[in-house]
Amino acid sequence: MLKLYYSPGACALASHIALEEAGADYELVKINLGAGEQRTPEFLAINPAGSTPALVTDEGVLTENVVIMGYIAETHRDARLADDVSSFSFSKMQSMNAWLGSSLHPAMGKLLFSRPALEAEARDAAAKVVLDKLDVLENHLFVGPWARGENFTVADGYVSVFTRWARQAGLLDPARYANLADHLDRIQSRPAVRKVLSAEGIEPV
Amino acid sequence: MLKLYYSPGACALASHIALEEAGADYELVKINLGAGEQRTPEFLAINPAGSTPALVTDEGVLTENVVIMGYIAETHRDARLADDVSSFSFSKMQSMNAWLGSSLHPAMGKLLFSRPALEAEARDAAAKVVLDKLDVLENHLFVGPWARGENFTVADGYVSVFTRWARQAGLLDPARYANLADHLDRIQSRPAVRKVLSAEGIEPV
Repeated sequence: MLKLYYSPGACALASHIALEEAGADYELVKINLGAGEQRTPEFLAINPAGSTPALVTDEGVLTENVVIMGYIAETHRDARLADDVSSFSFSKMQSMNAWLGSSLHPAMGKLLFSRPALEAEARDAAAKVVLDKLDVLENHLFVGPWARGENFTVADGYVSVFTRWARQAGLLDPARYANLADHLDRIQSRPAVRKVLSAEGIEPV
Repeated sequence: MLKLYYSPGACALASHIALEEAGADYELVKINLGAGEQRTPEFLAINPAGSTPALVTDEGVLTENVVIMGYIAETHRDARLADDVSSFSFSKMQSMNAWLGSSLHPAMGKLLFSRPALEAEARDAAAKVVLDKLDVLENHLFVGPWARGENFTVADGYVSVFTRWARQAGLLDPARYANLADHLDRIQSRPAVRKVLSAEGIEPV
């Protein structure tokens, strides 16, 4: 059985949504990032990089949302959460997912999760970087009505991680980010996503 | 023909090495990041996110090293730069590559490329983050003798992007990072890599 290490509301939510939408047989292990549980010897034996998500499979451990989501889609083809792994459209989807992980996530992390919190000038600069990247997502990378077009894919859950954070921080102005705001409402109304949020003990935003 | 948009010595070096090691038919387009050429309308039409690398293919544009490297390996199977795209070992390799892109790269970028440069206290904190991540790479993620084990893969070129930066910044202490320092020497002695460095107008470090 698959085993997902996650922290409530953190970016592993994307892999959690993928598992639930795939109808996968999986169990959850909660890692409290705020309490430093990602640095215990037990968890570092699972993922030496000390980050969530980590997915334990029969073949070994996979890390990083972009890879875990691709793996879930490919091993649960009936759920149609992505095109075939060898297709160009799969790679295009993964370009978007990799950008979310390597560009939007670090930018939002700096703004929202720096400890100690950024001072005013640095916070304003970091917020501009985030808003600019959300512009790129809203106006260019997001295809619509779902992230990659007509069909729901694993990329949708990943987008929702960051639009959730943005809305919670008061950054998801629906006039500026109409596609993303509407998308967040729609994805949070999906039965699988509601079940995932409940399992993590968090609310729709 | 494939067309790679790159900036000399920047992270697109990983995709450039993959193309050359694959024996691919490709051409280069230089984007001077320091001069802001990634923000021209011409380049934003290629990659709206305004980052390199971008690989133009007959089917469309791919972005992000992790995806481009996987695509090059899969479309040039004879070069054996990765296991088959549907294999678990391919996903394991991509977990490492995605970590390089989403974790090590932002950490090194903050330390080395912040403008204005970080002040002393912030620089020390950022350097510790980088050194800790290089520890993870040296002691856990890097398999040896090549990044993923006995065979050279696209992951090797990606590792070398960051070990080059680290050595240039005086951070690649060979006592602390013996595997990575030796790996950098070996990869920079490969004929394909020497050709790539020459094409970018940069030197081995």
